[in-house]
Amino acid sequence: MDIKEVTASVSDELKLFRERYKSVLHSSNSLVDKVSRYVLRQQGKQIRPLLVLLSAKVFGEVGDSAYRGAIMVELLHSATLIHDDVVDGAEMRRGIPSINALWKNKISVLIGDYLLSKGLLYSLENNDYRSLHLVSEAVKRMSEGELLQIQKTRSLDITEEDYLSVIADKTGSLIATSCAIGAASATSSEEDIASLKSYGEYLGLAFQIRDDLLDYTGDSKKTGKQLGIDIKDRKITLPLIHALLHSEKTEQNRIKSILKSSKQRAVRSRDVIAFVREKGGLDYAATVAEGFASKAIESIAHFPENDARRSLERLVDFVMKRQH
Amino acid sequence: MDIKEVTASVSDELKLFRERYKSVLHSSNSLVDKVSRYVLRQQGKQIRPLLVLLSAKVFGEVGDSAYRGAIMVELLHSATLIHDDVVDGAEMRRGIPSINALWKNKISVLIGDYLLSKGLLYSLENNDYRSLHLVSEAVKRMSEGELLQIQKTRSLDITEEDYLSVIADKTGSLIATSCAIGAASATSSEEDIASLKSYGEYLGLAFQIRDDLLDYTGDSKKTGKQLGIDIKDRKITLPLIHALLHSEKTEQNRIKSILKSSKQRAVRSRDVIAFVREKGGLDYAATVAEGFASKAIESIAHFPENDARRSLERLVDFVMKRQH
Repeated sequence: MDIKEVTASVSDELKLFRERYKSVLHSSNSLVDKVSRYVLRQQGKQIRPLLVLLSAKVFGEVGDSAYRGAIMVELLHSATLIHDDVVDGAEMRRGIPSINALWKNKISVLIGDYLLSKGLLYSLENNDYRSLHLVSEAVKRMSEGELLQIQKTRSLDITEEDYLSVIADKTGSLIATSCAIGAASATSSEEDIASLKSYGEYLGLAFQIRDDLLDYTGDSKKTGKQLGIDIKDRKITLPLIHALLHSEKTEQNRIKSILKSSKQRAVRSRDVIAFVREKGGLDYAATVAEGFASKAIESIAHFPENDARRSLERLVDFVMKRQH
Repeated sequence: MDIKEVTASVSDELKLFRERYKSVLHSSNSLVDKVSRYVLRQQGKQIRPLLVLLSAKVFGEVGDSAYRGAIMVELLHSATLIHDDVVDGAEMRRGIPSINALWKNKISVLIGDYLLSKGLLYSLENNDYRSLHLVSEAVKRMSEGELLQIQKTRSLDITEEDYLSVIADKTGSLIATSCAIGAASATSSEEDIASLKSYGEYLGLAFQIRDDLLDYTGDSKKTGKQLGIDIKDRKITLPLIHALLHSEKTEQNRIKSILKSSKQRAVRSRDVIAFVREKGGLDYAATVAEGFASKAIESIAHFPENDARRSLERLVDFVMKRQH
């Protein structure tokens, strides 16, 4: 399945979004402009602006406020990715060197701050207060989620509940916000806005669980990520949490002793992957993701059957089937 | 001169601000709460919230909106300091270890993002849109100023104009914004708000030039900063810019060759300090700072002579006389 099947119903709108986004990123400061142009090159699938546009189009209309919302969420998403790469010391982002690899941490932290404030300022200038409320809450949830993750992962005692709370904050919040901003730009029905927001929250959960599963099952050539890199980084995700919970104490201790040592994690990540597979951790995580995917589709089932709604449904499929 | 002479006219208000600020910083996440409590311990003179309160009191009234503004600017200022310390790899902040020294860059970047979004969210929740507009512009200017500084300092060709533009953005903008937020909370006269904003902008310029001068003349025991650390970090400030401009080509080259090498900067910073002093760089920078200090006082000269206005004038004096 190709992302184009999802984007077809808003391809003109996406094109217009990209043009406007590019001009918003332009800066009179030559360094900022250079880094910004590089940010554009690093662009991923732009799922968040896509969701803003689709969530508006479900109600028939993609107006200026939707475009501005799309630009704001993409600015904030880019800002958080740049800070994430600093935080993780990541060398690569989507197959090309990360901003921090090329310009060092100093400039990366500042460019992140700059894009963050630019996004907020852009909405303020246009008096999009509703969008601002939605997005500021998301920014706060994102940093809280990251912090909770760091805290929980360290002690290796993260529960499924903690994990879900972390990914809801880290990934679900901005995706849910994107949908809510799009909906709010085209309807005044609070109920409908809430439905789209739920769709986004569930989609975000399904997306992150699938993403975490790819660390165990992905083809590193396609994902661009080394298999088991989360294990090496001591990121404990759902498959491993489930496997640890459903194993004997002695086996738990064997795996935990690997996880505690960075050297052991580096050389024995394959053992951990085999353990997780054997204990049914992969199947379990896939089932949980399926559950959220269904809930996402249910959340929008009462809307009129139009192209935009179908695209939102296809996006859930795309997320569930993606191999990279 | 003691800062208490400045704060006396709003001592009750400052106390109330500190109580409220402390409760806003409280978080249910234990790691965030721990770091936040440490942020409180690191607290400096809280010049920005002080300016919000004084700028409101000039018009006779310190209302809830002023307190919220004071909390917001202090949250944003704390966030930028934490990111600055990451950016500069600083080990210490106000005599105690920096956040990044204790919790590493990862948590520091995230706590900075968290405080930044918390500040914005706090104002959004209270519908303080005017304050938000003012402060978002300041956040953008601050990151632009930092980026311009990095860019210009690298090539050693920074002009006085560039320098002033950098410090106006980096330091002046949030100080000016603090004054404007305070004024806007107590008066609807755009003219009066603009006067206070000008006061803050000039005060910020004077403050930063004095701060940069202390790198050449300060007592490291009092400032807590090693003498000549800016030179070692290749930060070219006004005294040096002036000295380079007013010296022969051969001498320029001698100094620039020191500045280009990190090793040379480390061992020969005293030579640079002597050069700057001899060329009148210190006197010149002091005169420029005096000029801005006078302009700050002029900006508020037409307001009624009350305790708050006198405190604002004393604050200018304090900035001009401070030795650390």
